[in-house]
Amino acid sequence: MREWEANIRKVVPYVPGEQPKEQGIIKLNTNENPYPPSEKVRKALEETDVDRLRLYPDPTIDSLVSAIAKYYQVDKENVFVGVGSDDVIAMSFMTFFNSDKPILFPDITYSFYDVWADMLKIPYETQPLDEAFHIVKEDYMKENGGIIFPNPNAPTGVLEDISVIEEIVAKNPASVVIVDEAYVDFGGKSAISLLEKYDNLLVVQTYSKSRSMAGMRIGFAIGNKELIKYLNDVKYSFNSYTMNDTSIRFGVAAIEDKAYFEETVEKIIATREWTKKELTNLGFTFPDSKANFIFATHESIPAEELQQALRKEKIIVRYFKKPKIDNYLRITVGTQKEMETLVQTLNNYIENRKCKQ
Amino acid sequence: MREWEANIRKVVPYVPGEQPKEQGIIKLNTNENPYPPSEKVRKALEETDVDRLRLYPDPTIDSLVSAIAKYYQVDKENVFVGVGSDDVIAMSFMTFFNSDKPILFPDITYSFYDVWADMLKIPYETQPLDEAFHIVKEDYMKENGGIIFPNPNAPTGVLEDISVIEEIVAKNPASVVIVDEAYVDFGGKSAISLLEKYDNLLVVQTYSKSRSMAGMRIGFAIGNKELIKYLNDVKYSFNSYTMNDTSIRFGVAAIEDKAYFEETVEKIIATREWTKKELTNLGFTFPDSKANFIFATHESIPAEELQQALRKEKIIVRYFKKPKIDNYLRITVGTQKEMETLVQTLNNYIENRKCKQ
Repeated sequence: MREWEANIRKVVPYVPGEQPKEQGIIKLNTNENPYPPSEKVRKALEETDVDRLRLYPDPTIDSLVSAIAKYYQVDKENVFVGVGSDDVIAMSFMTFFNSDKPILFPDITYSFYDVWADMLKIPYETQPLDEAFHIVKEDYMKENGGIIFPNPNAPTGVLEDISVIEEIVAKNPASVVIVDEAYVDFGGKSAISLLEKYDNLLVVQTYSKSRSMAGMRIGFAIGNKELIKYLNDVKYSFNSYTMNDTSIRFGVAAIEDKAYFEETVEKIIATREWTKKELTNLGFTFPDSKANFIFATHESIPAEELQQALRKEKIIVRYFKKPKIDNYLRITVGTQKEMETLVQTLNNYIENRKCKQ
Repeated sequence: MREWEANIRKVVPYVPGEQPKEQGIIKLNTNENPYPPSEKVRKALEETDVDRLRLYPDPTIDSLVSAIAKYYQVDKENVFVGVGSDDVIAMSFMTFFNSDKPILFPDITYSFYDVWADMLKIPYETQPLDEAFHIVKEDYMKENGGIIFPNPNAPTGVLEDISVIEEIVAKNPASVVIVDEAYVDFGGKSAISLLEKYDNLLVVQTYSKSRSMAGMRIGFAIGNKELIKYLNDVKYSFNSYTMNDTSIRFGVAAIEDKAYFEETVEKIIATREWTKKELTNLGFTFPDSKANFIFATHESIPAEELQQALRKEKIIVRYFKKPKIDNYLRITVGTQKEMETLVQTLNNYIENRKCKQ
């Protein structure tokens, strides 16, 4: 070991899903939106003033914060914006989870939570989901240093009723409870509705899924003004200018096109429901997803085998080699046409396999 | 206090320089480049494929890392890219400064270093500059948990000889030494030349000054492959996708236009040298700046008074109300025309003031 290595923070990083460079791929592995961003984003692109890029962006990100506040009918002081919801949640861990008591999150959930906790040396205790992949709310009513879970959960797609969320928030007045709503637009009810009643709740959302803008890295949190101020203080202590000129302006344009947003979300929901029926016919089972993906297991064929078979046919789905979920595939809902190809490809593979046996 | 406030990280954030929204301002307060980005950036903008924004960007940022590596004639594995040099340095503090011993930096320097140290609970000891605002190299040869300083230093503009840098790096084999070269392109010699000899050196640079792209938030570090790997591990544990599609592509375009970069840097240097002479004639003194700003004090008029007088004439310069430097103005070098207006405005003010006395 070199002398300087003693003082280095050594971590096991999160491994993001594959971003293939080859052409002709049906990419159903990272829950991106199959539809392009709003036409208003194209217009914002065309209006970009290259000369202005020499100047720092507005550190308060006022235009984007205001546009999000207007959309959700809250005040500007209730909104925090960051470089994707990963940035927003990482900053939230730093800001709110500074107790010696463990933070709580589900055992099967977004695989970044334990990475952040490890990196920031935050103690944590995972809470097992029940057999139907639901949160057991009583598990979140013990002493803790903070709580976080996605709703709908990832990678299961399971939605908890807003009454369950409310009970967890209400029973934890001494903790900040973060509800990670990356997928809520595909069929869930947002906990934003609870913010008037509870000051210990932070709701996090993202442009990466329902707003078709994973490539621009925009996430946001909505919460009471004190929470948002503390979060901004940490952000300003880390990097005053996180959002670049283009992400600010494209972000405003996207959220102003509600009609397009609703249209694409509806299309994805319709395709998801169609895909559920087809997968059932092929022998798959899955918890009922309210997200833009389906977490499916086959009655006889191992998930890993199916993933590799699909990969050969240029269809990429996500497989997690982890306890309890290592026989599941997480399949992003693409366009109707992509899902028809997926179903056809799975059908061919399953039929051929039967013949060989 | 609310119950949940006990576990919150409370910090005093960095206050960035003013970004005024009014028109007709001569903005000499945040060391931006007065010239627009390269025409190649405009072309990259025009080639932006809005449809692709639905997809996550490449988490390895391969194209931009490769372009920077090529420019500096190092390997890809020697380059780390982040959201401005603030992001790069914040990640470096987290990664490399994990000792119980204090990190060392100058008492007069970039005012974010102590903010990061406070936020990350890293012990630090500031080392006084000498009377000519130079680093006293012996101060950096005591036991420490890491070293950081800008070269040229901010807000003084004073450049240390590369032999001073080398001695500090050589005498600290057990520490990572970070040289923050935000301003090096305006007349300094980069410590990148020392990387072949020393594995404990990290050099940080930015697109915000010499490359006219503060608005896109692009910074980078160059160092030995082990350091860069540790830095990437922390980055991947914080946010896998920090750089958005546009910053990656515009960043590649900018660094590929070396001719334009050299042309604008030369213009700024020529204007800086002209401004130095004029300021001297007006009764100012200043350490000899090798950056894109001049840190000047007047023989008879307080700096704060001059700042306010200039602000009334729509010229913004930076003033730090801090010990030792509270009679100095940090004046960014703008276009030749802007600096002529500045000199004329200062001259008028000084003359009028004399008449009134």
